[in-house]
Amino acid sequence: MEPRISLVTLGVRDVALSRRFYETLGWHASPASNADVVFFQLGGMALALFGRRALAADAHVDEGAGFGGVALAQNQPSRDAVDRVMGEAEAAGARILKPARDVFWGGYSGYFADPDGHAWEIAWNPFFTLEADGRLTLP
Amino acid sequence: MEPRISLVTLGVRDVALSRRFYETLGWHASPASNADVVFFQLGGMALALFGRRALAADAHVDEGAGFGGVALAQNQPSRDAVDRVMGEAEAAGARILKPARDVFWGGYSGYFADPDGHAWEIAWNPFFTLEADGRLTLP
Repeated sequence: MEPRISLVTLGVRDVALSRRFYETLGWHASPASNADVVFFQLGGMALALFGRRALAADAHVDEGAGFGGVALAQNQPSRDAVDRVMGEAEAAGARILKPARDVFWGGYSGYFADPDGHAWEIAWNPFFTLEADGRLTLP
Repeated sequence: MEPRISLVTLGVRDVALSRRFYETLGWHASPASNADVVFFQLGGMALALFGRRALAADAHVDEGAGFGGVALAQNQPSRDAVDRVMGEAEAAGARILKPARDVFWGGYSGYFADPDGHAWEIAWNPFFTLEADGRLTLP
């Protein structure tokens, strides 16, 4: 199996509400989107928003509750850029889980939650290469 | 905020065990990995494995339980390729949540769970463009 993710699907309570949140961040939904599912192009992959109950049913899993043990991260080239994006997220209605700060591993990061509590980390990591086009390269 | 994911972090019970699962799939951990966190390069992004409790603490969220409403997907260029990858995952110790089948939206997909129940969909989607290098492009 190739090391590759094509889509990350977030199960949401209200597809229209979550769509508005990500659009308020400045993202543009693909024309492939409809009332039940919304797609955003993210570089060479996509983020999908889909009803949480429908996603659980599609995957043949019980619906679960609370934090599911998954965090999405977006790296930034500097501490200032982290602060700026955290501010943009808060202005779009995100709940700040953890204000950005210097962290033990030598970087700077904060977390926000989207309308369904999905956790996004915004981080500056001086050990990983971040290209101008947003591609991340590990050591 | 740019439409971009740098890392997807999966909270796991046993980092070494989860690392072995993904390595058995043929993935190679970055030298940046250690006993507490493991990184895999996935195109221009990365997958991280980190203790679930530590991830919840880092994100300032309660730990939660069960399915967290997130699914990862890897698209394939054909039904046969989906079957092959589902077989590889099962051989590596994945639990098959849903055997691959034709689905209502016109594609073909199945789901497996990694050792912590994180859901992966393996899908053939004739409506999305999948480049030879694995990049996915929405309509």
